[in-house]
Amino acid sequence: MSTEIPPPGETPRPARRDAEATKAAILRAARHFLARQAHADITLKAVAERAGVSPPLILKYFGNKDAVFARVMSFEEDAEALLGAPLEDLGRHMVRHVLVSQREHGSDPLLRIAFAPFQGDHGDILRANFRAQVTTRLAARLPGPDAGLRAELALAALLGLGVMFGIARGTDVRSTPVDETVERYGPLVQAQLIPRAY
Amino acid sequence: MSTEIPPPGETPRPARRDAEATKAAILRAARHFLARQAHADITLKAVAERAGVSPPLILKYFGNKDAVFARVMSFEEDAEALLGAPLEDLGRHMVRHVLVSQREHGSDPLLRIAFAPFQGDHGDILRANFRAQVTTRLAARLPGPDAGLRAELALAALLGLGVMFGIARGTDVRSTPVDETVERYGPLVQAQLIPRAY
Repeated sequence: MSTEIPPPGETPRPARRDAEATKAAILRAARHFLARQAHADITLKAVAERAGVSPPLILKYFGNKDAVFARVMSFEEDAEALLGAPLEDLGRHMVRHVLVSQREHGSDPLLRIAFAPFQGDHGDILRANFRAQVTTRLAARLPGPDAGLRAELALAALLGLGVMFGIARGTDVRSTPVDETVERYGPLVQAQLIPRAY
Repeated sequence: MSTEIPPPGETPRPARRDAEATKAAILRAARHFLARQAHADITLKAVAERAGVSPPLILKYFGNKDAVFARVMSFEEDAEALLGAPLEDLGRHMVRHVLVSQREHGSDPLLRIAFAPFQGDHGDILRANFRAQVTTRLAARLPGPDAGLRAELALAALLGLGVMFGIARGTDVRSTPVDETVERYGPLVQAQLIPRAY
């Protein structure tokens, strides 16, 4: 409802914006599949279909399938959302984030690490990114000793919740209101974040 | 050291025993891969190599690759070992079981469910077996309300520990003595098994 004139830097440039929007759609589609199945099972055709573009357009923009995947192996944005709460409420916030992502999108962003292949560059890059962008970042916020171990154990509990909800498809957790599961499971995660002595 | 003569039913029959041993080796090899990678990535050749047999021998015994996999989709034996402790110590026991399996075998048997494909019979059978043989069996032992949900959340924490140790390869959890992680993480699992009011 603003009547202000947009500043010069924000003048829309339709053509470029369209290319950017298309690239973003391709990356979103690749991300969608990487959060749901093994790398080897994902075809360029499936990514193209989901993005509403042709496979050759993906090749034009990115070169090849692996180059697309390389662009979506960052956990940077996911970590931002996952860790976006004050420490005293972080356990509950993270549990809620995983559950809401699973309910709304059929997966959660952390779960991509569960599909990291045992061998090869793809898995190693995912593991390194997960460590640097999620584990280390969480550990840096934790008071007390053994922050690295406690960050890993808190994240383990969250990863398992995603596996149980999204892959094992546990009937009870899927039919329980988010708030109730947050109340039950949040304190478990929180117990790793703030050690008893604190 | 017994000098007793074996009863007639136990007279060794080498030829048959060899075939059984070979089949068992094939199933062990299939199980090994299914606990480590996606179904689609596993070749008959790899299973044969690991079992020390030829691919045609696998086909002779089982018919095809999927028939081999169908034989190793049970969690029956795993559940026996995982749940083999009194309720008051079950949380710690289960955490120890996952950690020791990961350390000794590079995976844990529950983790097979994390590789269950989203689509297709293979994933659906794994999910149904996991529910019937692990979740439901654990839930049946739990006192108090919402036993099904609490069983799923306890198993979620264990699944996540396997993902963090075996797939994300968390450096801290991998370098921490089993006993210490059991002390830290066991109570989280136990908290789901026995509700506070009990």
